[in-house]
Amino acid sequence: MAELAVEPVFAALQRGFDASIERLCALLRIPSVGTDPAFAEDTRRAAAWLVERLKEIGFDASLRPTSGMPMVVAHDPDAPADAPHLLYYGHYDVQPPDPLREWDNPPFEPRIVQGPHGPRVVARGAVDDKGQLMTWLEALAAWKAVHGRLPVRVSVLIEGEEESASENLEPFLLANADELKADVCVISDTGMLGVNEPAITTMLRGILYLELRIQGPVRDLHSGMFGGAVPNPIHMLTRVLAALHDAHGRIALPGFYDRVFALEPEIRAQWRALPFDEKGFLAAAGLSRSIGEEGFTTLERLWARPCCDVNGIWGGYTGEGSKTVIPAKAAAKFSFRLVPDQDPQEVLAQTKAFLSSLIPTEYRWELVPMGMGRPIRVPTTSPFLGAARRALAIAFGKEPALIGCGGSIPVVATIKDRLGMDSLLLGFGLDDDRPHGPNEKFELVCYERGQRAHAALIAEVARLAG
Amino acid sequence: MAELAVEPVFAALQRGFDASIERLCALLRIPSVGTDPAFAEDTRRAAAWLVERLKEIGFDASLRPTSGMPMVVAHDPDAPADAPHLLYYGHYDVQPPDPLREWDNPPFEPRIVQGPHGPRVVARGAVDDKGQLMTWLEALAAWKAVHGRLPVRVSVLIEGEEESASENLEPFLLANADELKADVCVISDTGMLGVNEPAITTMLRGILYLELRIQGPVRDLHSGMFGGAVPNPIHMLTRVLAALHDAHGRIALPGFYDRVFALEPEIRAQWRALPFDEKGFLAAAGLSRSIGEEGFTTLERLWARPCCDVNGIWGGYTGEGSKTVIPAKAAAKFSFRLVPDQDPQEVLAQTKAFLSSLIPTEYRWELVPMGMGRPIRVPTTSPFLGAARRALAIAFGKEPALIGCGGSIPVVATIKDRLGMDSLLLGFGLDDDRPHGPNEKFELVCYERGQRAHAALIAEVARLAG
Repeated sequence: MAELAVEPVFAALQRGFDASIERLCALLRIPSVGTDPAFAEDTRRAAAWLVERLKEIGFDASLRPTSGMPMVVAHDPDAPADAPHLLYYGHYDVQPPDPLREWDNPPFEPRIVQGPHGPRVVARGAVDDKGQLMTWLEALAAWKAVHGRLPVRVSVLIEGEEESASENLEPFLLANADELKADVCVISDTGMLGVNEPAITTMLRGILYLELRIQGPVRDLHSGMFGGAVPNPIHMLTRVLAALHDAHGRIALPGFYDRVFALEPEIRAQWRALPFDEKGFLAAAGLSRSIGEEGFTTLERLWARPCCDVNGIWGGYTGEGSKTVIPAKAAAKFSFRLVPDQDPQEVLAQTKAFLSSLIPTEYRWELVPMGMGRPIRVPTTSPFLGAARRALAIAFGKEPALIGCGGSIPVVATIKDRLGMDSLLLGFGLDDDRPHGPNEKFELVCYERGQRAHAALIAEVARLAG
Repeated sequence: MAELAVEPVFAALQRGFDASIERLCALLRIPSVGTDPAFAEDTRRAAAWLVERLKEIGFDASLRPTSGMPMVVAHDPDAPADAPHLLYYGHYDVQPPDPLREWDNPPFEPRIVQGPHGPRVVARGAVDDKGQLMTWLEALAAWKAVHGRLPVRVSVLIEGEEESASENLEPFLLANADELKADVCVISDTGMLGVNEPAITTMLRGILYLELRIQGPVRDLHSGMFGGAVPNPIHMLTRVLAALHDAHGRIALPGFYDRVFALEPEIRAQWRALPFDEKGFLAAAGLSRSIGEEGFTTLERLWARPCCDVNGIWGGYTGEGSKTVIPAKAAAKFSFRLVPDQDPQEVLAQTKAFLSSLIPTEYRWELVPMGMGRPIRVPTTSPFLGAARRALAIAFGKEPALIGCGGSIPVVATIKDRLGMDSLLLGFGLDDDRPHGPNEKFELVCYERGQRAHAALIAEVARLAG
């Protein structure tokens, strides 16, 4: 099976590394700030750049219009028809670069700077997601250059609205399901635990984001004239929000934990052995110890346990000094982070029932859902996950950790829901890469190893068929 | 005792009523908005007008400078040296008239308008407090005109900063205690239960106004990355605020009720017989029933029971849509209404102890007092209160009710604390007078009866000496 040999591809990647940095910098120079209308043309230019590059390496690639930014879609015309099929997903839009004055170099003039891990590229989009999507694009290019053809079927989908809620992704997937359906989705938009600590994210928490609005009196009242005899909506709000947790840090909604998966003992053991810098993690928030649900470590709380946070609260007089008012209204935004196999719709119903049981009829209230995303878990028995583990081990010389992510990556749930595909989250970012912040960077050593990992993944996935 | 005959004074008041309306309107035309620097000269002009009027009716009157608006101080030079001594208090400053477009006539162009109780005067300050202070000023003038001299000693103190926290009142009382100390203070700045329902306010709730600021992390955190493992200051805030009340509507601070007086059964019975329009009172707030401390009527809750209200709360993201933040800080303003014999300082200490027992060391917090005022009760055995009851009965042909007031009138506590004097609160306002609001008004029938009541009070107080 000469065509599965990965060493020659590694060698080609190494020879071409400087050129691959040039290509990454060319893409980073395009200010594709998707959310800012002033950058709409630039954002489309980034999409066109990717189409050209995909064509250059032998893909059938095209720009596909949506009501927003176009999708870049490409397929490898030369792939063996019966080989496993991979859909690579990425995004070409980037966050706005503000605040500009906190950047050491202009955000769209990428600069190579020395750091503790060697050279890094500093620019908006360096790690999120241009640098990361280029790791697989370079691997695909090198493989085709070395072996002539890929041993797996490959499709590519790169969107331009990831930083602004991917509004057109779901309709596009639905409209093009037959074309985009593959065996597994490959995404590089996550991180590692350290430059020598490869990781695959196999768990993502879901989310249910809610706004609760409570009204007591029809108008603001004087607290001297009415205090003690009328309902105060802030009281009711604080009472129900306080009631969301019990004394052990658990969420008090009846039925809330019914579908929560039990973390496998082996994963639990593996996580406890991870080089997780808990002190540093907490110190960044000015904290000396973690608090939360009793009986779990910090990583377990973050990755494998649901939680609830009030994200905002307001009501009454909030200016300087004092005002003796009983306000008519008060409100809060709060959100649940959910884990497999919780269902946001079910938790919404549990929340409504809970509030109904607590709020007396003196108050009018409404609960407004402002976002939901399903939790995700890639089964550890998945052969594709096995291939990804081996690929990372080859590229890094070290077994990758299977980790979780406390946040949500909505696209992963969308792809699972709409195309029925799991995603392999092979990410090469580091904790200090500052995606969304000033001086965003991507370590060149991560860029290089990412390319090798994706080359190895192609071989390992191809072997699954054999 | 010809000099105590009140009928001739009533007759004089009746003859001079139109002229007294003219005088009131002259005072109302002076836009003495004390808090607005643009009206500073006008505010001083109102003080000067009162000095002139007091001189006109035979008082030694002067403007006394303070670091803010001057005090109007006057003494009756002709009073019998050994007679009871009354200090009349009022204020010449008024609230800002905004919103101007909601007024039917310009706020400082008083207009006489017909209403269900006959003519009323509509202007800023009509009831608060110009119309009310003129009731006693006209009574003093008429008495002196009819009898030549007053049968009681009279001093007058009219300030110009009541609507902006009376900052200079306490230092002025302290600096001039010997001059201002009298047997009792007379204030007309409160209300009645109806145009034919005279009342004396003998109970005022005190206040302790606090701001609680809680900090969790040192900076805002992403709720996906940190949620479930770090302290959320909004949680802590809602928890302690919710804990301030128990399930029976009582305040949960240990020791809070220790000094709360027990309402006398006869007052309780009297209040239950009052023509209090509870439905109307609640309907104005859009409510159909009163809620609060169990075991008490609405009036008892408002006048004779302490309470606690959160007046404002804020923290985290409060804009449109969703933001997945765990905020660093959250805060709330909350206040206790206190009743005799509670002490604001003691309740502050109880609150601090309560918070210390609830807030774990992960959180930093501070409790900032933003105002306090002692609760007030005029003993029902006070001979001056007896005189006031008889005076109102004479003027209205009906026994006055002894009522409470849910709000605080800080000047009453200041006078009690600094000069050791009780206050007789004989007010002639009605519930719908809209002090502080647009189209503020004072019923001319209240103006007339108020004048008569004050004339009768002079006689009744003089009789105490005999």
